[in-house]
Amino acid sequence: MANELVRFSVAMPEDLLVEFDKLVARRGLAKNRSEVVRDLARDAIIAAECEEPDVMVVGTLTIAFNHHASDLQERLDRIQHDHFGHVISSMHVHLDEHNCLEVIVLKGTGDEVRKIADRILGTKGVKHGKLVLTTTGDHL
Amino acid sequence: MANELVRFSVAMPEDLLVEFDKLVARRGLAKNRSEVVRDLARDAIIAAECEEPDVMVVGTLTIAFNHHASDLQERLDRIQHDHFGHVISSMHVHLDEHNCLEVIVLKGTGDEVRKIADRILGTKGVKHGKLVLTTTGDHL
Amino acid sequence: MANELVRFSVAMPEDLLVEFDKLVARRGLAKNRSEVVRDLARDAIIAAECEEPDVMVVGTLTIAFNHHASDLQERLDRIQHDHFGHVISSMHVHLDEHNCLEVIVLKGTGDEVRKIADRILGTKGVKHGKLVLTTTGDHL
Amino acid sequence: MANELVRFSVAMPEDLLVEFDKLVARRGLAKNRSEVVRDLARDAIIAAECEEPDVMVVGTLTIAFNHHASDLQERLDRIQHDHFGHVISSMHVHLDEHNCLEVIVLKGTGDEVRKIADRILGTKGVKHGKLVLTTTGDHL
Repeated sequence: MANELVRFSVAMPEDLLVEFDKLVARRGLAKNRSEVVRDLARDAIIAAECEEPDVMVVGTLTIAFNHHASDLQERLDRIQHDHFGHVISSMHVHLDEHNCLEVIVLKGTGDEVRKIADRILGTKGVKHGKLVLTTTGDHL
Repeated sequence: MANELVRFSVAMPEDLLVEFDKLVARRGLAKNRSEVVRDLARDAIIAAECEEPDVMVVGTLTIAFNHHASDLQERLDRIQHDHFGHVISSMHVHLDEHNCLEVIVLKGTGDEVRKIADRILGTKGVKHGKLVLTTTGDHL
Repeated sequence: MANELVRFSVAMPEDLLVEFDKLVARRGLAKNRSEVVRDLARDAIIAAECEEPDVMVVGTLTIAFNHHASDLQERLDRIQHDHFGHVISSMHVHLDEHNCLEVIVLKGTGDEVRKIADRILGTKGVKHGKLVLTTTGDHL
Repeated sequence: MANELVRFSVAMPEDLLVEFDKLVARRGLAKNRSEVVRDLARDAIIAAECEEPDVMVVGTLTIAFNHHASDLQERLDRIQHDHFGHVISSMHVHLDEHNCLEVIVLKGTGDEVRKIADRILGTKGVKHGKLVLTTTGDHL
Protein backbone atom coordinates (compact mmCIF):
# COMPACT_ATOMS: atom_id res chain seq x y z
CA MET A 1 0.00 0.00 0.00
CA ALA A 2 1.10 3.55 -0.62
CA ASN A 3 3.28 5.51 1.72
CA GLU A 4 4.49 2.87 4.10
CA LEU A 5 7.19 3.82 6.56
CA VAL A 6 10.65 2.86 5.27
CA ARG A 7 13.64 2.60 7.59
CA PHE A 8 17.21 3.47 6.73
CA SER A 9 20.28 3.94 8.82
CA VAL A 10 22.19 7.18 9.26
CA ALA A 11 25.80 7.42 10.39
CA MET A 12 26.75 10.50 12.40
CA PRO A 13 29.94 11.44 14.28
CA GLU A 14 29.32 11.31 18.02
CA ASP A 15 29.97 15.06 18.52
CA LEU A 16 27.44 16.01 15.86
CA LEU A 17 24.92 13.57 17.32
CA VAL A 18 25.23 15.21 20.74
CA GLU A 19 24.36 18.60 19.22
CA PHE A 20 21.64 17.07 17.07
CA ASP A 21 20.01 15.51 20.14
CA LYS A 22 19.97 18.95 21.80
CA LEU A 23 18.19 20.29 18.72
CA VAL A 24 15.69 17.41 18.91
CA ALA A 25 15.08 18.19 22.58
CA ARG A 26 14.48 21.87 21.84
CA ARG A 27 11.86 20.93 19.24
CA GLY A 28 9.58 19.57 21.94
CA LEU A 29 8.76 16.48 23.90
CA ALA A 30 6.86 14.76 21.15
CA LYS A 31 9.75 14.84 18.69
CA ASN A 32 12.34 12.14 18.21
CA ARG A 33 15.34 11.87 15.87
CA SER A 34 13.30 10.40 13.02
CA GLU A 35 10.71 13.12 13.21
CA VAL A 36 13.31 15.91 13.18
CA VAL A 37 15.14 14.31 10.24
CA ARG A 38 11.81 14.19 8.40
CA ASP A 39 11.16 17.87 9.29
CA LEU A 40 14.56 18.94 8.00
CA ALA A 41 14.14 16.87 4.83
CA ARG A 42 10.69 18.38 4.17
CA ASP A 43 11.96 21.92 4.76
CA ALA A 44 14.82 21.41 2.29
CA ILE A 45 12.56 19.79 -0.34
CA ILE A 46 9.91 22.51 0.00
CA ALA A 47 12.52 25.28 -0.17
CA ALA A 48 13.84 23.78 -3.42
CA GLU A 49 10.33 23.39 -4.86
CA CYS A 50 9.35 26.96 -4.02
CA GLU A 51 12.22 28.24 -6.13
CA GLU A 52 10.89 26.50 -9.22
CA PRO A 53 8.63 28.87 -11.20
CA ASP A 54 6.16 26.13 -12.26
CA VAL A 55 5.59 24.06 -9.13
CA MET A 56 2.22 24.52 -7.41
CA VAL A 57 2.70 26.39 -4.17
CA VAL A 58 0.60 27.89 -1.41
CA GLY A 59 1.47 31.42 -0.39
CA THR A 60 0.56 33.20 2.82
CA LEU A 61 0.65 36.93 2.29
CA THR A 62 0.51 39.08 5.42
CA ILE A 63 -0.19 42.79 4.88
CA ALA A 64 -0.65 45.69 7.27
CA PHE A 65 -2.58 48.82 6.37
CA ASN A 66 -4.55 51.72 7.79
CA HIS A 67 -8.22 51.12 7.12
CA HIS A 68 -8.86 54.85 6.93
CA ALA A 69 -6.89 54.99 3.69
CA SER A 70 -9.37 55.99 1.03
CA ASP A 71 -11.22 52.94 -0.30
CA LEU A 72 -8.17 50.72 0.27
CA GLN A 73 -10.17 47.76 1.56
CA GLU A 74 -12.34 48.03 -1.54
CA ARG A 75 -9.33 48.05 -3.85
CA LEU A 76 -7.79 45.08 -2.02
CA ASP A 77 -11.06 43.16 -2.35
CA ARG A 78 -11.24 43.96 -6.04
CA ILE A 79 -7.75 42.56 -6.68
CA GLN A 80 -8.64 39.41 -4.76
CA HIS A 81 -11.83 38.98 -6.81
CA ASP A 82 -9.86 39.49 -10.03
CA HIS A 83 -7.80 36.48 -8.98
CA PHE A 84 -10.53 34.43 -7.28
CA GLY A 85 -9.12 31.28 -8.93
CA HIS A 86 -5.90 31.74 -6.94
CA VAL A 87 -7.11 33.41 -3.76
CA ILE A 88 -8.29 30.69 -1.40
CA SER A 89 -9.38 32.85 1.49
CA SER A 90 -8.38 35.76 3.64
CA MET A 91 -8.52 36.65 7.30
CA HIS A 92 -8.83 40.14 8.69
CA VAL A 93 -7.50 41.24 12.08
CA HIS A 94 -8.17 44.64 13.68
CA LEU A 95 -4.85 45.51 15.31
CA ASP A 96 -5.93 48.78 16.90
CA GLU A 97 -8.16 51.78 16.18
CA HIS A 98 -6.47 52.45 12.88
CA ASN A 99 -4.48 49.47 11.73
CA CYS A 100 -5.50 46.22 10.11
CA LEU A 101 -3.67 43.05 9.33
CA GLU A 102 -4.92 40.91 6.49
CA VAL A 103 -3.65 37.42 5.79
CA ILE A 104 -4.39 36.17 2.28
CA VAL A 105 -3.81 32.55 1.28
CA LEU A 106 -2.94 32.12 -2.39
CA LYS A 107 -2.53 28.99 -4.51
CA GLY A 108 -0.90 28.59 -7.93
CA THR A 109 2.50 28.26 -9.53
CA GLY A 110 5.28 30.14 -7.79
CA ASP A 111 5.17 32.75 -10.54
CA GLU A 112 1.40 33.27 -10.34
CA VAL A 113 1.44 33.60 -6.56
CA ARG A 114 4.37 36.03 -6.57
CA LYS A 115 2.69 38.15 -9.27
CA ILE A 116 -0.60 38.48 -7.36
CA ALA A 117 1.28 39.20 -4.15
CA ASP A 118 3.27 41.93 -5.91
CA ARG A 119 0.04 43.49 -7.16
CA ILE A 120 -1.42 43.55 -3.65
CA LEU A 121 1.81 44.83 -2.11
CA GLY A 122 1.95 47.51 -4.79
CA THR A 123 -1.45 48.92 -3.82
CA LYS A 124 -1.18 52.47 -2.52
CA GLY A 125 -1.75 52.48 1.24
CA VAL A 126 -0.43 48.99 1.99
CA LYS A 127 2.20 49.80 4.58
CA HIS A 128 4.04 46.55 4.88
CA GLY A 129 3.80 42.99 3.72
CA LYS A 130 5.49 39.64 3.61
CA LEU A 131 4.92 36.56 1.48
CA VAL A 132 5.91 33.06 2.55
CA LEU A 133 5.64 30.11 0.22
CA THR A 134 5.10 26.49 1.00
CA THR A 135 4.02 23.61 -1.20
CA THR A 136 0.78 21.73 -0.83
CA GLY A 137 3.05 19.01 0.43
CA ASP A 138 0.57 16.30 -0.48
CA HIS A 139 3.48 14.09 -1.53
CA LEU A 140 5.42 14.79 1.66
CA MET B 1 -2.24 67.89 14.12
CA ALA B 2 -0.61 64.51 14.57
CA ASN B 3 1.30 62.82 11.85
CA GLU B 4 1.49 65.52 9.25
CA LEU B 5 3.39 64.88 6.06
CA VAL B 6 6.93 66.24 6.26
CA ARG B 7 9.04 66.80 3.14
CA PHE B 8 12.76 66.34 2.88
CA SER B 9 15.08 66.19 -0.08
CA VAL B 10 17.14 63.19 -1.13
CA ALA B 11 20.24 63.34 -3.31
CA MET B 12 20.88 60.39 -5.57
CA PRO B 13 23.42 59.77 -8.34
CA GLU B 14 21.69 59.75 -11.73
CA ASP B 15 22.60 56.11 -12.45
CA LEU B 16 21.12 54.93 -9.20
CA LEU B 17 18.01 57.03 -9.76
CA VAL B 18 17.46 55.37 -13.15
CA GLU B 19 17.49 51.95 -11.50
CA PHE B 20 15.39 53.18 -8.60
CA ASP B 21 12.73 54.48 -11.01
CA LYS B 22 12.59 51.03 -12.63
CA LEU B 23 12.00 49.56 -9.17
CA VAL B 24 9.26 52.13 -8.53
CA ALA B 25 7.64 51.21 -11.86
CA ARG B 26 7.72 47.49 -11.03
CA ARG B 27 5.92 48.17 -7.75
CA GLY B 28 2.80 49.20 -9.60
CA LEU B 29 1.05 52.14 -11.15
CA ALA B 30 -0.10 53.67 -7.91
CA LYS B 31 3.39 54.00 -6.46
CA ASN B 32 5.66 56.99 -6.77
CA ARG B 33 9.18 57.64 -5.45
CA SER B 34 7.97 58.93 -2.06
CA GLU B 35 5.78 55.91 -1.51
CA VAL B 36 8.57 53.45 -2.35
CA VAL B 37 11.00 55.31 -0.06
CA ARG B 38 8.39 55.07 2.71
CA ASP B 39 7.94 51.32 1.99
CA LEU B 40 11.68 50.68 2.17
CA ALA B 41 12.00 52.74 5.35
CA ARG B 42 9.11 50.86 7.00
CA ASP B 43 10.54 47.48 5.99
CA ALA B 44 13.93 48.35 7.48
CA ILE B 45 12.42 49.74 10.69
CA ILE B 46 10.12 46.74 11.15
CA ALA B 47 12.96 44.28 10.45
CA ALA B 48 15.02 46.00 13.17
CA GLU B 49 12.10 46.02 15.62
CA CYS B 50 11.34 42.33 15.07
CA GLU B 51 14.85 41.43 16.18
CA GLU B 52 14.32 43.07 19.57
CA PRO B 53 13.08 40.50 22.11
CA ASP B 54 10.73 42.93 23.90
CA VAL B 55 9.00 44.85 21.14
CA MET B 56 5.34 43.94 20.52
CA VAL B 57 5.04 42.09 17.24
CA VAL B 58 2.40 40.30 15.24
CA GLY B 59 3.35 36.88 13.91
CA THR B 60 1.74 34.95 11.10
CA LEU B 61 2.44 31.25 11.51
CA THR B 62 1.63 29.05 8.53
CA ILE B 63 1.61 25.30 9.19
CA ALA B 64 0.80 22.31 7.00
CA PHE B 65 -0.37 18.98 8.39
CA ASN B 66 -2.32 15.85 7.57
CA HIS B 67 -5.65 16.01 9.33
CA HIS B 68 -5.74 12.21 9.64
CA ALA B 69 -2.87 12.38 12.13
CA SER B 70 -4.28 11.14 15.40
CA ASP B 71 -6.01 13.97 17.27
CA LEU B 72 -3.58 16.52 15.85
CA GLN B 73 -6.21 19.18 15.28
CA GLU B 74 -7.30 18.72 18.88
CA ARG B 75 -3.76 19.13 20.18
CA LEU B 76 -3.24 22.21 18.02
CA ASP B 77 -6.45 23.72 19.36
CA ARG B 78 -5.40 22.98 22.92
CA ILE B 79 -2.11 24.82 22.48
CA GLN B 80 -3.90 27.80 21.00
CA HIS B 81 -6.34 27.89 23.91
CA ASP B 82 -3.44 27.67 26.38
CA HIS B 83 -2.18 30.89 24.81
CA PHE B 84 -5.53 32.57 24.07
CA GLY B 85 -4.09 35.88 25.27
CA HIS B 86 -1.60 35.81 22.41
CA VAL B 87 -3.50 33.92 19.70
CA ILE B 88 -5.64 36.44 17.85
CA SER B 89 -7.29 34.10 15.39
CA SER B 90 -6.64 31.28 13.00
CA MET B 91 -7.77 30.31 9.52
CA HIS B 92 -8.05 26.80 8.24
CA VAL B 93 -7.69 25.79 4.56
CA HIS B 94 -8.40 22.32 3.18
CA LEU B 95 -5.65 21.82 0.62
CA ASP B 96 -6.73 18.41 -0.63
CA GLU B 97 -8.27 15.15 0.69
CA HIS B 98 -5.57 14.78 3.32
CA ASN B 99 -3.73 18.02 3.86
CA CYS B 100 -4.58 21.13 5.77
CA LEU B 101 -3.02 24.52 6.01
CA GLU B 102 -3.60 26.56 9.11
CA VAL B 103 -2.63 30.20 9.49
CA ILE B 104 -2.42 31.40 13.07
CA VAL B 105 -2.01 35.09 13.90
CA LEU B 106 -0.12 35.68 17.15
CA LYS B 107 0.52 38.88 19.12
CA GLY B 108 3.04 39.53 21.87
CA THR B 109 6.69 40.32 22.38
CA GLY B 110 9.05 38.75 19.84
CA ASP B 111 10.09 36.20 22.45
CA GLU B 112 6.53 35.24 23.38
CA VAL B 113 5.46 34.84 19.77
CA ARG B 114 8.53 32.78 18.86
CA LYS B 115 8.00 30.52 21.88
CA ILE B 116 4.38 29.75 21.06
CA ALA B 117 5.27 29.21 17.41
CA ASP B 118 8.01 26.77 18.45
CA ARG B 119 5.54 24.86 20.59
CA ILE B 120 3.10 24.55 17.68
CA LEU B 121 5.85 23.64 15.20
CA GLY B 122 7.11 21.04 17.69
CA THR B 123 3.78 19.23 17.75
CA LYS B 124 4.09 15.71 16.36
CA GLY B 125 2.41 15.55 12.97
CA VAL B 126 3.01 19.16 11.91
CA LYS B 127 4.80 18.65 8.61
CA HIS B 128 6.06 22.09 7.85
CA GLY B 129 5.74 25.60 9.08
CA LYS B 130 6.95 29.15 8.74
CA LEU B 131 6.66 32.17 10.99
CA VAL B 132 6.85 35.75 9.75
CA LEU B 133 6.94 38.68 12.10
CA THR B 134 5.76 42.19 11.60
CA THR B 135 5.02 44.96 14.07
CA THR B 136 1.64 46.44 14.68
CA GLY B 137 3.08 49.40 12.89
CA ASP B 138 0.69 51.82 14.55
CA HIS B 139 3.51 54.36 14.76
CA LEU B 140 4.48 53.88 11.11
CA MET C 1 28.55 64.60 -17.23
CA ALA C 2 27.85 61.10 -16.09
CA ASN C 3 26.28 60.34 -12.77
CA GLU C 4 25.56 63.75 -11.36
CA LEU C 5 23.70 63.98 -8.09
CA VAL C 6 19.97 64.56 -8.66
CA ARG C 7 17.71 65.85 -5.89
CA PHE C 8 14.10 64.90 -5.37
CA SER C 9 11.75 65.46 -2.50
CA VAL C 10 10.22 62.73 -0.36
CA ALA C 11 7.06 63.14 1.74
CA MET C 12 6.87 61.12 4.93
CA PRO C 13 4.37 61.16 7.82
CA GLU C 14 5.97 62.68 10.92
CA ASP C 15 5.69 59.45 12.97
CA LEU C 16 7.46 57.42 10.29
CA LEU C 17 10.14 60.09 9.96
CA VAL C 18 10.86 59.91 13.71
CA GLU C 19 11.47 56.16 13.43
CA PHE C 20 13.42 56.58 10.20
CA ASP C 21 15.72 59.12 11.88
CA LYS C 22 16.41 56.57 14.64
CA LEU C 23 17.35 54.07 11.95
CA VAL C 24 19.65 56.64 10.33
CA ALA C 25 21.27 57.29 13.73
CA ARG C 26 21.87 53.57 14.31
CA ARG C 27 23.63 53.30 10.96
CA GLY C 28 26.45 55.45 12.18
CA LEU C 29 27.61 58.99 12.51
CA ALA C 30 28.59 59.42 8.91
CA LYS C 31 25.16 58.58 7.55
CA ASN C 32 22.38 61.05 6.79
CA ARG C 33 18.86 60.55 5.44
CA SER C 34 19.95 60.72 1.80
CA GLU C 35 22.65 58.14 2.31
CA VAL C 36 20.29 55.71 4.06
CA VAL C 37 17.66 56.15 1.35
CA ARG C 38 20.35 55.37 -1.23
CA ASP C 39 21.41 52.29 0.79
CA LEU C 40 17.86 50.99 0.98
CA ALA C 41 17.29 51.67 -2.72
CA ARG C 42 20.50 49.83 -3.67
CA ASP C 43 19.64 46.86 -1.45
CA ALA C 44 16.20 46.54 -3.05
CA ILE C 45 17.57 46.91 -6.60
CA ILE C 46 20.36 44.39 -5.99
CA ALA C 47 17.96 41.91 -4.35
CA ALA C 48 15.74 42.12 -7.43
CA GLU C 49 18.69 41.74 -9.81
CA CYS C 50 20.06 38.71 -7.98
CA GLU C 51 16.79 36.87 -8.56
CA GLU C 52 17.16 37.22 -12.32
CA PRO C 53 18.90 34.15 -13.78
CA ASP C 54 20.84 36.12 -16.43
CA VAL C 55 22.12 39.20 -14.63
CA MET C 56 25.85 39.24 -13.86
CA VAL C 57 26.37 38.79 -10.15
CA VAL C 58 29.21 38.35 -7.71
CA GLY C 59 28.85 35.53 -5.21
CA THR C 60 30.70 35.08 -1.94
CA LEU C 61 30.68 31.42 -0.95
CA THR C 62 31.77 30.64 2.61
CA ILE C 63 32.49 26.98 3.36
CA ALA C 64 33.72 25.19 6.46
CA PHE C 65 35.52 21.86 6.36
CA ASN C 66 37.95 19.63 8.19
CA HIS C 67 41.27 19.71 6.39
CA HIS C 68 42.02 16.16 7.48
CA ALA C 69 39.25 14.89 5.19
CA SER C 70 40.99 12.83 2.56
CA ASP C 71 42.24 15.03 -0.28
CA LEU C 72 39.34 17.45 0.20
CA GLN C 73 41.46 20.56 -0.35
CA GLU C 74 42.73 19.00 -3.58
CA ARG C 75 39.20 18.27 -4.79
CA LEU C 76 38.07 21.80 -3.89
CA ASP C 77 41.02 23.26 -5.80
CA ARG C 78 40.23 21.09 -8.82
CA ILE C 79 36.64 22.33 -8.97
CA GLN C 80 37.82 25.93 -8.73
CA HIS C 81 40.32 25.36 -11.55
CA ASP C 82 37.58 23.77 -13.68
CA HIS C 83 35.74 27.05 -13.37
CA PHE C 84 38.69 29.44 -13.39
CA GLY C 85 36.71 31.77 -15.67
CA HIS C 86 34.20 32.32 -12.88
CA VAL C 87 36.31 31.92 -9.76
CA ILE C 88 37.92 35.28 -9.02
CA SER C 89 39.87 34.32 -5.93
CA SER C 90 39.66 32.52 -2.66
CA MET C 91 40.84 33.10 0.88
CA HIS C 92 41.69 30.40 3.36
CA VAL C 93 41.40 30.74 7.14
CA HIS C 94 42.66 28.19 9.68
CA LEU C 95 39.96 28.21 12.35
CA ASP C 96 41.60 25.73 14.72
CA GLU C 97 43.69 22.56 14.63
CA HIS C 98 41.21 20.78 12.43
CA ASN C 99 38.83 23.21 10.81
CA CYS C 100 39.20 25.52 7.85
CA LEU C 101 37.07 28.26 6.44
CA GLU C 102 37.37 29.07 2.79
CA VAL C 103 35.78 32.08 1.16
CA ILE C 104 35.48 31.86 -2.62
CA VAL C 105 34.45 34.84 -4.73
CA LEU C 106 32.59 33.88 -7.91
CA LYS C 107 31.46 35.97 -10.87
CA GLY C 108 28.95 35.12 -13.59
CA THR C 109 25.22 35.00 -14.20
CA GLY C 110 23.12 34.08 -11.20
CA ASP C 111 22.61 30.62 -12.65
CA GLU C 112 26.32 30.03 -13.30
CA VAL C 113 27.33 31.16 -9.83
CA ARG C 114 24.66 29.09 -8.11
CA LYS C 115 25.67 25.99 -10.15
CA ILE C 116 29.35 26.23 -9.21
CA ALA C 117 28.44 26.90 -5.59
CA ASP C 118 26.21 23.82 -5.55
CA ARG C 119 29.06 21.72 -6.93
CA ILE C 120 31.43 22.92 -4.20
CA LEU C 121 28.79 22.52 -1.47
CA GLY C 122 28.08 19.01 -2.78
CA THR C 123 31.69 17.92 -2.30
CA LYS C 124 31.97 15.16 0.30
CA GLY C 125 33.54 16.58 3.45
CA VAL C 126 32.28 20.14 3.13
CA LYS C 127 30.51 20.56 6.45
CA HIS C 128 28.64 23.76 5.96
CA GLY C 129 28.36 26.57 3.50
CA LYS C 130 26.52 29.72 2.55
CA LEU C 131 26.34 31.70 -0.66
CA VAL C 132 25.48 35.39 -0.79
CA LEU C 133 24.95 37.21 -4.04
CA THR C 134 25.48 40.81 -4.88
CA THR C 135 25.77 42.58 -8.21
CA THR C 136 28.86 44.32 -9.46
CA GLY C 137 26.81 47.42 -8.82
CA ASP C 138 28.84 49.44 -11.30
CA HIS C 139 25.63 51.22 -12.33
CA LEU C 140 24.65 51.90 -8.73
CA MET D 1 38.22 7.38 20.95
CA ALA D 2 36.74 10.75 20.24
CA ASN D 3 34.09 11.29 17.66
CA GLU D 4 33.36 7.81 16.45
CA LEU D 5 30.62 7.29 13.89
CA VAL D 6 27.33 6.31 15.55
CA ARG D 7 24.50 4.73 13.57
CA PHE D 8 20.82 5.23 14.19
CA SER D 9 17.78 4.38 12.16
CA VAL D 10 15.36 6.86 10.62
CA ALA D 11 11.80 6.04 9.59
CA MET D 12 10.40 7.96 6.64
CA PRO D 13 7.17 7.58 4.65
CA GLU D 14 7.91 6.19 1.20
CA ASP D 15 6.65 9.32 -0.62
CA LEU D 16 8.89 11.59 1.41
CA LEU D 17 11.84 9.26 0.87
CA VAL D 18 11.36 9.46 -2.91
CA GLU D 19 11.60 13.26 -2.75
CA PHE D 20 14.47 13.11 -0.30
CA ASP D 21 16.43 10.85 -2.64
CA LYS D 22 15.94 13.38 -5.44
CA LEU D 23 17.37 16.03 -3.10
CA VAL D 24 20.33 13.77 -2.30
CA ALA D 25 20.92 13.25 -6.04
CA ARG D 26 20.86 17.01 -6.70
CA ARG D 27 23.51 17.54 -4.02
CA GLY D 28 26.06 15.70 -6.12
CA LEU D 29 27.47 12.29 -6.83
CA ALA D 30 29.55 12.04 -3.71
CA LYS D 31 26.61 12.50 -1.35
CA ASN D 32 24.50 9.74 0.16
CA ARG D 33 21.51 9.86 2.52
CA SER D 34 23.67 9.90 5.66
CA GLU D 35 25.77 12.77 4.39
CA VAL D 36 22.73 14.88 3.48
CA VAL D 37 21.11 14.17 6.87
CA ARG D 38 24.35 15.33 8.50
CA ASP D 39 24.39 18.46 6.31
CA LEU D 40 20.81 19.33 7.23
CA ALA D 41 21.47 18.67 10.92
CA ARG D 42 24.59 20.89 10.86
CA ASP D 43 22.74 23.68 9.06
CA ALA D 44 19.94 23.63 11.64
CA ILE D 45 22.36 23.51 14.59
CA ILE D 46 24.51 26.32 13.21
CA ALA D 47 21.46 28.47 12.42
CA ALA D 48 20.30 28.05 16.04
CA GLU D 49 23.78 28.82 17.40
CA CYS D 50 24.17 31.95 15.30
CA GLU D 51 21.03 33.40 16.89
CA GLU D 52 22.54 33.16 20.37
CA PRO D 53 24.29 36.43 21.27
CA ASP D 54 27.16 34.75 23.15
CA VAL D 55 28.19 31.82 20.97
CA MET D 56 31.49 32.21 19.10
CA VAL D 57 30.79 32.65 15.42
CA VAL D 58 32.68 33.38 12.24
CA GLY D 59 31.21 36.07 10.01
CA THR D 60 31.91 36.71 6.36
CA LEU D 61 31.14 40.30 5.49
CA THR D 62 30.99 41.15 1.78
CA ILE D 63 30.99 44.86 0.92
CA ALA D 64 31.01 46.73 -2.36
CA PHE D 65 32.32 50.25 -2.74
CA ASN D 66 33.77 52.72 -5.18
CA HIS D 67 37.48 53.08 -4.49
CA HIS D 68 37.43 56.70 -5.68
CA ALA D 69 35.36 57.64 -2.63
CA SER D 70 37.55 59.94 -0.60
CA ASP D 71 39.85 57.97 1.69
CA LEU D 72 37.27 55.20 2.06
CA GLN D 73 39.81 52.39 1.85
CA GLU D 74 41.79 54.13 4.56
CA ARG D 75 38.76 54.46 6.81
CA LEU D 76 37.85 50.80 6.23
CA ASP D 77 41.37 49.75 7.12
CA ARG D 78 41.31 51.84 10.27
CA ILE D 79 38.11 50.18 11.49
CA GLN D 80 39.60 46.76 10.82
CA HIS D 81 42.74 47.67 12.77
CA ASP D 82 40.60 48.96 15.65
CA HIS D 83 39.16 45.47 15.85
CA PHE D 84 42.25 43.46 14.92
CA GLY D 85 41.38 40.95 17.64
CA HIS D 86 38.21 40.05 15.75
CA VAL D 87 39.20 40.65 12.13
CA ILE D 88 40.91 37.49 10.87
CA SER D 89 41.69 38.61 7.35
CA SER D 90 40.27 40.33 4.34
CA MET D 91 40.37 39.84 0.60
CA HIS D 92 40.10 42.56 -1.98
CA VAL D 93 38.70 42.12 -5.49
CA HIS D 94 38.80 44.76 -8.24
CA LEU D 95 35.44 44.38 -9.94
CA ASP D 96 35.96 46.99 -12.64
CA GLU D 97 37.59 50.41 -13.14
CA HIS D 98 35.70 51.90 -10.24
CA ASN D 99 34.26 49.23 -8.03
CA CYS D 100 35.79 47.04 -5.38
CA LEU D 101 34.54 44.09 -3.45
CA GLU D 102 36.03 43.39 -0.06
CA VAL D 103 35.40 40.23 1.90
CA ILE D 104 36.24 40.49 5.60
CA VAL D 105 36.28 37.44 7.86
CA LEU D 106 35.37 38.23 11.48
CA LYS D 107 35.45 36.08 14.60
CA GLY D 108 33.81 36.66 17.98
CA THR D 109 30.48 36.33 19.70
CA GLY D 110 27.46 36.93 17.52
CA ASP D 111 27.01 40.33 19.11
CA GLU D 112 30.63 41.39 18.61
CA VAL D 113 30.65 40.31 14.97
CA ARG D 114 27.35 42.03 14.20
CA LYS D 115 28.54 45.24 15.88
CA ILE D 116 31.77 45.44 13.86
CA ALA D 117 29.89 44.59 10.67
CA ASP D 118 27.40 47.38 11.39
CA ARG D 119 30.25 49.83 11.88
CA ILE D 120 31.80 48.87 8.53
CA LEU D 121 28.44 48.91 6.74
CA GLY D 122 27.74 52.31 8.28
CA THR D 123 30.86 53.84 6.76
CA LYS D 124 30.01 56.56 4.27
CA GLY D 125 30.68 55.31 0.74
CA VAL D 126 30.03 51.62 1.36
CA LYS D 127 27.42 50.94 -1.27
CA HIS D 128 26.17 47.54 -0.29
CA GLY D 129 27.02 44.74 2.05
CA LYS D 130 25.93 41.42 3.44
CA LEU D 131 27.00 39.50 6.52
CA VAL D 132 26.67 35.72 6.83
CA LEU D 133 27.38 33.93 10.07
CA THR D 134 28.59 30.43 10.66
CA THR D 135 30.10 28.79 13.71
CA THR D 136 33.60 27.46 13.91
CA GLY D 137 31.87 24.12 13.86
CA ASP D 138 34.75 22.41 15.62
CA HIS D 139 32.25 20.30 17.52
CA LEU D 140 30.30 19.43 14.36
